[in-house]
Amino acid sequence: MSQQIYDRVALIGLGLIASSMGHAMKKWNLAGSVVGHARSEETRKAALEVGFCDEVFDTAAEAVKDADLVVLAVPVLAMGPIAAEIRDHLKPGATVTDVGSVKQAVIEAVAPHIPEGVDFVPGHPLAGTEHSGPRAGFATLFRNRFCLLVPGHARPVAVERLTRLWQGMGANVEQMDAAHHDRVLAVTSHTPHLIAYTMVGVADHLAQVTESEIIKYSAAGFRDFTRIAASDPTMWRDVFLTNKEATLDILGRFMEELFVLQRAIRMEDGKTLHDYFTRTRAIRRGIIEAGQDTAAPDFGRVKAQEE
Amino acid sequence: MSQQIYDRVALIGLGLIASSMGHAMKKWNLAGSVVGHARSEETRKAALEVGFCDEVFDTAAEAVKDADLVVLAVPVLAMGPIAAEIRDHLKPGATVTDVGSVKQAVIEAVAPHIPEGVDFVPGHPLAGTEHSGPRAGFATLFRNRFCLLVPGHARPVAVERLTRLWQGMGANVEQMDAAHHDRVLAVTSHTPHLIAYTMVGVADHLAQVTESEIIKYSAAGFRDFTRIAASDPTMWRDVFLTNKEATLDILGRFMEELFVLQRAIRMEDGKTLHDYFTRTRAIRRGIIEAGQDTAAPDFGRVKAQEE
Repeated sequence: MSQQIYDRVALIGLGLIASSMGHAMKKWNLAGSVVGHARSEETRKAALEVGFCDEVFDTAAEAVKDADLVVLAVPVLAMGPIAAEIRDHLKPGATVTDVGSVKQAVIEAVAPHIPEGVDFVPGHPLAGTEHSGPRAGFATLFRNRFCLLVPGHARPVAVERLTRLWQGMGANVEQMDAAHHDRVLAVTSHTPHLIAYTMVGVADHLAQVTESEIIKYSAAGFRDFTRIAASDPTMWRDVFLTNKEATLDILGRFMEELFVLQRAIRMEDGKTLHDYFTRTRAIRRGIIEAGQDTAAPDFGRVKAQEE
Repeated sequence: MSQQIYDRVALIGLGLIASSMGHAMKKWNLAGSVVGHARSEETRKAALEVGFCDEVFDTAAEAVKDADLVVLAVPVLAMGPIAAEIRDHLKPGATVTDVGSVKQAVIEAVAPHIPEGVDFVPGHPLAGTEHSGPRAGFATLFRNRFCLLVPGHARPVAVERLTRLWQGMGANVEQMDAAHHDRVLAVTSHTPHLIAYTMVGVADHLAQVTESEIIKYSAAGFRDFTRIAASDPTMWRDVFLTNKEATLDILGRFMEELFVLQRAIRMEDGKTLHDYFTRTRAIRRGIIEAGQDTAAPDFGRVKAQEE
């Protein structure tokens, strides 16, 4: 029984997300063939070697030829130039999607290049790890994660087909408008990443505490920040440059609240601290009940240490 | 072959750390008997039921009688009152230690109550999970984690014996002075926790993004913060009230750096962002090489989802 949803899928950019899509489409037989393009020859070679692409091309224009689905999986600021490059090579009736972490800026950059007769269905799988590149992907990355689609003017038939692809890869698909997407992600992803990068940066700059001490004693909380702060720098630079307003808004609120807690520490106001720390526990319970994290202590890391 | 290091160990406070010590001492036969005290009857019953204590007592004074090692495992601000309560009941030659996350304040509160002929060896195992209480402990919590001892005026023989206990439970033991300890922990633990609590609080207060959205889409980074922010509120209140100066210092530095990155976003200074995000990757590599975290993507959570 074939569940193939697209005959030919072209992955443009062959990093963590694209390679995971390639693995997933092959594992669950969702595409007739998967082809790809990446700027670096090393990455293209790795994609063939790892086996999530059947064929790779030196240019994006060649890669998208005859593809029923084109997936833009490059950093957000690279999306516009890629769209300009492929516009005249897209197959009539094809669907173009993307996996960028920001939606308004991607739509502004890409939509003007989408020709008549091609559907553009922006998307964002809320999945990832701290690892990057063509060797970081795996088929189950999207399982039980959410993929947000921002259909805009795309034909329902194209949206429905892409929805089935993501569902086939294990994701829960929901639709959202672009502005709301960018605001939600500023809270659940962009600001937390900026904060994690900052905390790791502070530790890196300290003179009185050595780097070796920070590394050895990181298990007390800090190491969770370093995981987030190990994500791809180019991807994250582009996120902050393109989701500027929402990130600055959430960051402003974060600083306000941090000042409240800072003042409570300075004034030795234990009640404010205790009340604040008690309320935040409820969200964690919600996340575990929604199946979006494990209840195992320390993310289950500790179990891995048992003999 | 017996490896018993103490005849009788009294655990005062029966939460995550004490219960893990109890399990570990039993598993590796490090103590002749383990007795305990907790304020709540429910907790005392749980300790017997789970089996990490051989006997429990209604008062700390009764529990420490005849104990060779007394472990204070209560929130930092409760240490002083407990020390006052047990001072006249300690066995001559006994050792008192603690597991508090702050050392200067604990020493100030506890040391005046330690009688002649009893050694006080303050300690801090850098281990924990987001779970609390007598049912949260497990024997391998300390394996490959660091335990910092702050010996002060204790006799070397007492320090050496406690060191062997921690090593027997799997920890790497190091010595440090109290002020340096508090500064190191402000970086690796206290400030990261405050920041995580704040970020979760911001999400909790937002009107435009629903709590259900935050919970569903948390896998994009936020959920790691919620794990840290699910820790015990009383313990953390006490940490911030008692390690005030060091935490405020690191928090001040954190805000300075965050302002730099906020400005870079506002000015669309991609180079500053990219450079910053690139430097922070090195610390993560160091932590993995030092065996203080797993290199598995997403802390290995994703593997748990595979069929």
